Amino acid sequence: MVYLKNIICFCSFFLAVQVMSQEHPNLILTQQGVQDIKKALGNVPLFDASLSEAKKFVDAQIAEGIQVPIPKDMAGGYTHERHKLNYLTMQKAGVLFQILNDNTYAIYVRDMLMAYAKMYPNLPRHPEERSYSRGKLFWQCLNDANWLVYTSQAYDCIYPFLTKKEVRYLETNVFRPMADFLSIETPQFFNRIHNHSTWGNVAVGMIGLVMQDDALISRALYGIPNAQLEKGAKDNDGGDIFIEGQKAGFLANLEEPFSPDGYYTEGPYYQRYAMYPFMIFAEALQNVKPEIAPFQYKDSVLLKGVEALLNLTDADGEFFALNDAQKGMSIFSGSLVSAVNIAYYYGNRNPSLLSVAQSQGRVQLDQTGLAVATDVALGKAKPFVKTSLLLTDGANGDQGAIAILRSNKGTPLTLVMKNAAQGLSHGHYDKLSFSLFQGGNEIIQDYGLARFVNIEQKNGGGYLKENKTWAKQTIAHNTVVQDEISHFNGDYSIGSQYHSDMYVFDTSNPDIQIASAKENNAYSGTALHRTMVMINEPTLKQPIILDIMRVKAKAAHQFDMPFYYLGQIISTNFEYTKSSTLSPLGKAHGYQHLWLEGQGTSTSGSAQLTWRNSNTFFTLTTATTKNDDLLFARIGANDPEYNLRPDPTFIVRKQAQETVFASVIEPHGSYSTVSELAQDIFTSVKMVGVLYNTEAYTAVKIQLKSEKEFIFLMANTDASSNKKHTVKINNTTFTWTGVGDLQIQE
Amino acid sequence: MVYLKNIICFCSFFLAVQVMSQEHPNLILTQQGVQDIKKALGNVPLFDASLSEAKKFVDAQIAEGIQVPIPKDMAGGYTHERHKLNYLTMQKAGVLFQILNDNTYAIYVRDMLMAYAKMYPNLPRHPEERSYSRGKLFWQCLNDANWLVYTSQAYDCIYPFLTKKEVRYLETNVFRPMADFLSIETPQFFNRIHNHSTWGNVAVGMIGLVMQDDALISRALYGIPNAQLEKGAKDNDGGDIFIEGQKAGFLANLEEPFSPDGYYTEGPYYQRYAMYPFMIFAEALQNVKPEIAPFQYKDSVLLKGVEALLNLTDADGEFFALNDAQKGMSIFSGSLVSAVNIAYYYGNRNPSLLSVAQSQGRVQLDQTGLAVATDVALGKAKPFVKTSLLLTDGANGDQGAIAILRSNKGTPLTLVMKNAAQGLSHGHYDKLSFSLFQGGNEIIQDYGLARFVNIEQKNGGGYLKENKTWAKQTIAHNTVVQDEISHFNGDYSIGSQYHSDMYVFDTSNPDIQIASAKENNAYSGTALHRTMVMINEPTLKQPIILDIMRVKAKAAHQFDMPFYYLGQIISTNFEYTKSSTLSPLGKAHGYQHLWLEGQGTSTSGSAQLTWRNSNTFFTLTTATTKNDDLLFARIGANDPEYNLRPDPTFIVRKQAQETVFASVIEPHGSYSTVSELAQDIFTSVKMVGVLYNTEAYTAVKIQLKSEKEFIFLMANTDASSNKKHTVKINNTTFTWTGVGDLQIQE
Repeated sequence: MVYLKNIICFCSFFLAVQVMSQEHPNLILTQQGVQDIKKALGNVPLFDASLSEAKKFVDAQIAEGIQVPIPKDMAGGYTHERHKLNYLTMQKAGVLFQILNDNTYAIYVRDMLMAYAKMYPNLPRHPEERSYSRGKLFWQCLNDANWLVYTSQAYDCIYPFLTKKEVRYLETNVFRPMADFLSIETPQFFNRIHNHSTWGNVAVGMIGLVMQDDALISRALYGIPNAQLEKGAKDNDGGDIFIEGQKAGFLANLEEPFSPDGYYTEGPYYQRYAMYPFMIFAEALQNVKPEIAPFQYKDSVLLKGVEALLNLTDADGEFFALNDAQKGMSIFSGSLVSAVNIAYYYGNRNPSLLSVAQSQGRVQLDQTGLAVATDVALGKAKPFVKTSLLLTDGANGDQGAIAILRSNKGTPLTLVMKNAAQGLSHGHYDKLSFSLFQGGNEIIQDYGLARFVNIEQKNGGGYLKENKTWAKQTIAHNTVVQDEISHFNGDYSIGSQYHSDMYVFDTSNPDIQIASAKENNAYSGTALHRTMVMINEPTLKQPIILDIMRVKAKAAHQFDMPFYYLGQIISTNFEYTKSSTLSPLGKAHGYQHLWLEGQGTSTSGSAQLTWRNSNTFFTLTTATTKNDDLLFARIGANDPEYNLRPDPTFIVRKQAQETVFASVIEPHGSYSTVSELAQDIFTSVKMVGVLYNTEAYTAVKIQLKSEKEFIFLMANTDASSNKKHTVKINNTTFTWTGVGDLQIQE
Repeated sequence: MVYLKNIICFCSFFLAVQVMSQEHPNLILTQQGVQDIKKALGNVPLFDASLSEAKKFVDAQIAEGIQVPIPKDMAGGYTHERHKLNYLTMQKAGVLFQILNDNTYAIYVRDMLMAYAKMYPNLPRHPEERSYSRGKLFWQCLNDANWLVYTSQAYDCIYPFLTKKEVRYLETNVFRPMADFLSIETPQFFNRIHNHSTWGNVAVGMIGLVMQDDALISRALYGIPNAQLEKGAKDNDGGDIFIEGQKAGFLANLEEPFSPDGYYTEGPYYQRYAMYPFMIFAEALQNVKPEIAPFQYKDSVLLKGVEALLNLTDADGEFFALNDAQKGMSIFSGSLVSAVNIAYYYGNRNPSLLSVAQSQGRVQLDQTGLAVATDVALGKAKPFVKTSLLLTDGANGDQGAIAILRSNKGTPLTLVMKNAAQGLSHGHYDKLSFSLFQGGNEIIQDYGLARFVNIEQKNGGGYLKENKTWAKQTIAHNTVVQDEISHFNGDYSIGSQYHSDMYVFDTSNPDIQIASAKENNAYSGTALHRTMVMINEPTLKQPIILDIMRVKAKAAHQFDMPFYYLGQIISTNFEYTKSSTLSPLGKAHGYQHLWLEGQGTSTSGSAQLTWRNSNTFFTLTTATTKNDDLLFARIGANDPEYNLRPDPTFIVRKQAQETVFASVIEPHGSYSTVSELAQDIFTSVKMVGVLYNTEAYTAVKIQLKSEKEFIFLMANTDASSNKKHTVKINNTTFTWTGVGDLQIQE
């Protein structure tokens, strides 16, 4: 009986192999795709260039010879970087084998896989013990999953070249053990709602699709049923490993962290990272199991996600540094090349994606990249125009939002306001925070993360302790801090329960664009309401930003509002004193990392700070009383290893129970270090004042040096667009319709 | 008799006017030039584009209407910027009148000149009193001279359009009075060896040439004879106004501050500024008084000066910040466009100048620019290749030199070593200092000046007091400071008496380029000898810099060697402690402006500091003893108005009577914020040690991690290239020929 069963098994295995070997490649590159590509070569410049680039890269690696070292190092170290290079090279080599019909590439992949198959069965977990889910090839399972996602593609491509014996050997010694290792042997890695798990799910799913293993595919899609995970367990970043009742697997990771608008709650830096496995597995599912309909899932959330990502960028295509984010990451990353190509092919062939692909200068080497390259060559590309946009957060879009205001008058001005949820373990405590860009320059910056990704000298390339003590803290952001304590007391478990709420997002009038949000949980008993308005008025050469932060507490507190301006201070309109020795501004919640450089007060009712950034001038004018402290500080205190950037900040400090921080930021003028010509180096704003502030209404006056006055009127509790409001301020009656209105007095 | 004389005078005046009006334009643009230009238009893209740009600029100004306000403001203010715009516009409008035959432009210039003529006779000196030579239109005569240099050209161009009455009115009310005002009424401005005087001389000379006034021309060329100047008088920067026996005038200013190699002793920033009047007046003299032969003067020093300037730049064409220099000034400045065009035309038509002109993207609107544009269109341009170069300083080339070492392996590496004279009043106290560039990035920076040129908020755009207290001081530079006192005690009158001496400049072996210089006067009784070697060795992926600073004093002193690295610290190989509060490093000589951030010591014999700059890594390895202090500091203390940049420095401090600072700087590796790939992020240098140091010989060992060793051997007192040297070090005998040698031990 046992004997018979074995025979049957053997036969079915044999048949399967036969059938499958005829079908491969079918995971990403398809047989039809290969035929189409071969026909098109030479007439599709973007594709031709990408292929030539890949060939150059792989040929150089082949020349260096195969190296499969015993794992030892952290990121940045030899074994880590070598294994990473190996999977990147194998994936490309597999594609080259298919497209160029050159066995050299198949042999290279086969021999390298054999070396892995020889090593893998005896590998213990990686000797570096710092990860909550140690890998085998790398210090964390995440990187092992990266390896498998890429290598599955290489395996699929050279499958027809392999003997049955080789297939069996590889699957027995590497692929199946690794799939199990990443899932059932490491459920704390596999069964979460987290980008780590997405990579794990996709790794298992991709190899499952190649091996036609339904158990693996099901595990990838739906997670491990009844995984024994400890409630309350945390990962290295303090993120939850298991939350009662939460689903797992690829589809749950598509369902939960994405909002209906395609915003990924961890922020664009991690969305970019997760986008590759999301999109490549969706393509694979579409090819092999189209009945899953991955691109239609959750009202086409993956396609929306690509559009969202492309919009979460400055003029240079660099992502906004929301939450943990390393600056400089951009739409030129490989994962975005892949995402744009796949979204073009499986979406509605949006021609504006073609211009993005053109700027990326390369395509994915499969039928999606071919389609993009072909249509670019046919001249179908249209500009990708970024406009103002609201991206809701939360699985159902009801956990606040990222609000983006844009103006394209002169150099594009972009305001990003974070009125969203915590953002899982990579979230920062920065409710109602903002950052401001002019073109590709950060004018008021979000610090981003405290980490040097893949720089081994800096904690092995991992997160630095300053990420928690500084980068995540509220004072590191452009938002209000009460009593030198971070939002939610900097406690992840509390912060995760809440989110800000959008009050208004109205860009119907391109000259008065309003984003307004409320936050009632950051500090118990304190209500925060911030309204930011991008005002484009003909007499102003450039648009200005009006920022109204209303604060109402149950008792008097100290409130700090920092502005992380970048650049060199040109002037102030108030007196200040620089310190003769420097001490930290505070003791905890990030304050310990700020040197207090100087302080002053303003007696004029409006404090002004002008700075120069990249040869443009900016002036912040903020309404003040004589009791407000104006602090100049710089990052860098209690930073024993120079892990932080010594960037400056300007802090407005008020002592109050109820108050309004009302400010205007005006970009103005220019300077050339070549012609030494200085133009419009003085602000056109004379003063900013709060005229009125009640529960129902707020009015802020902006007086220009031309003596023209703007009065911005805001209804604080009724956001309807057709409601008529009347308020009497200093014997003048103001009337307007809708939530906010700008009235101009000559 | 009186009556008759008047008649004769009148007649000769009348005749002169008649004759002259037929000859104009003849100052810069010539009648032949105008004809040639008209013929070529439409077929000389660079010229066509420049003309079109000028037309656009002038048309916009004409549309704004003529504004000639009563002078009031400092640089950056309205009246200053307006008068500046006026002369720039008039000069262009004059050219447009000639080339386009459109009276609109002549009328615009005429009417504006009439407005000046109406205002000028009643103008007192400028109300702002801070200059040693107050102007009338501007706060300093320098700017009035700028006005006249440009306006003379406009006047020459529209001369044929003017009536005799208008000519007389303008010359009587503006041009002659202004020429006298700038010279005989302000001799302290006119009669110096200084870029100010050059502008003054040329202003008077240019208008003299247009007016055919030999007295003015002679005054311009030879200065005011017997000017009553007070001995010992100083200008605002502490520069000498009058030195006994010193000549004056244009030719003296060509003779004295230029070295035979064309290096201008104030440094490239001011050379660029002076180059416009030097070259434009030379062109005018060549046109009107060719017997002066200005381009042949002092063995063609003006033409050499243009070549020198183009070489005193980094890969982006930005000038090295030697002495007072605002960073960002580059070969794209208008004065360099003019200089390159004139040098091409009147020099030997060097085709490499054409590629510079191409990169500048515009030409001067006269026959020189036409020649350049024509030859560029004919494809005659050749690359301008910058190589290693020695530029002597001093009128006779015997006052030290600027040494430039370059390597073009990988990203170009450029080392600039300042072993020159004081550099007049714009000089810094930085004997044997250096700076290092990779491509266009500053890796080890020279701070430059402390000034925001034309930014009114910053001291009216003038020099800031921090220029004296910080930027000029020795500690602000990458050279040795003894006992926290600047070279020459920071005293200009002492510093001006001395210069460093080149010992060796040998770039005959491109893989071992040596620059070596000695300084014996910066500190009484202390001898400084610095040797810098650019080593390109096949096993190193990029060239390295070996820096050997030998110090020998008569008694023990404290010696500080700062390295103004730019970028983020990645790691050190030694322990250090950051300060919990910050205090200034010292009390005077610039030390009061440095915050001491941390300090440490090295027990391994070599201290290493690795930093990242623009995604490249750099490691400084410096030989140390346990007694050396390693200090981390940052600029910004005692800076009450944020006039300084908060840049970092690393200081090696030794207590010794005789010592050697031996260091290696290695550029290595790369990082991409898009791919997050880190390569070669560790230095390949293991240690640097001083093997031997006597009066006669110094030997430094560089040990690589590969265990390969470099031994650099240097003869300190015999610079001949064929002398054979033998020295026994630790029982090993080293033999070499020539002053320095690199010996490699595997």
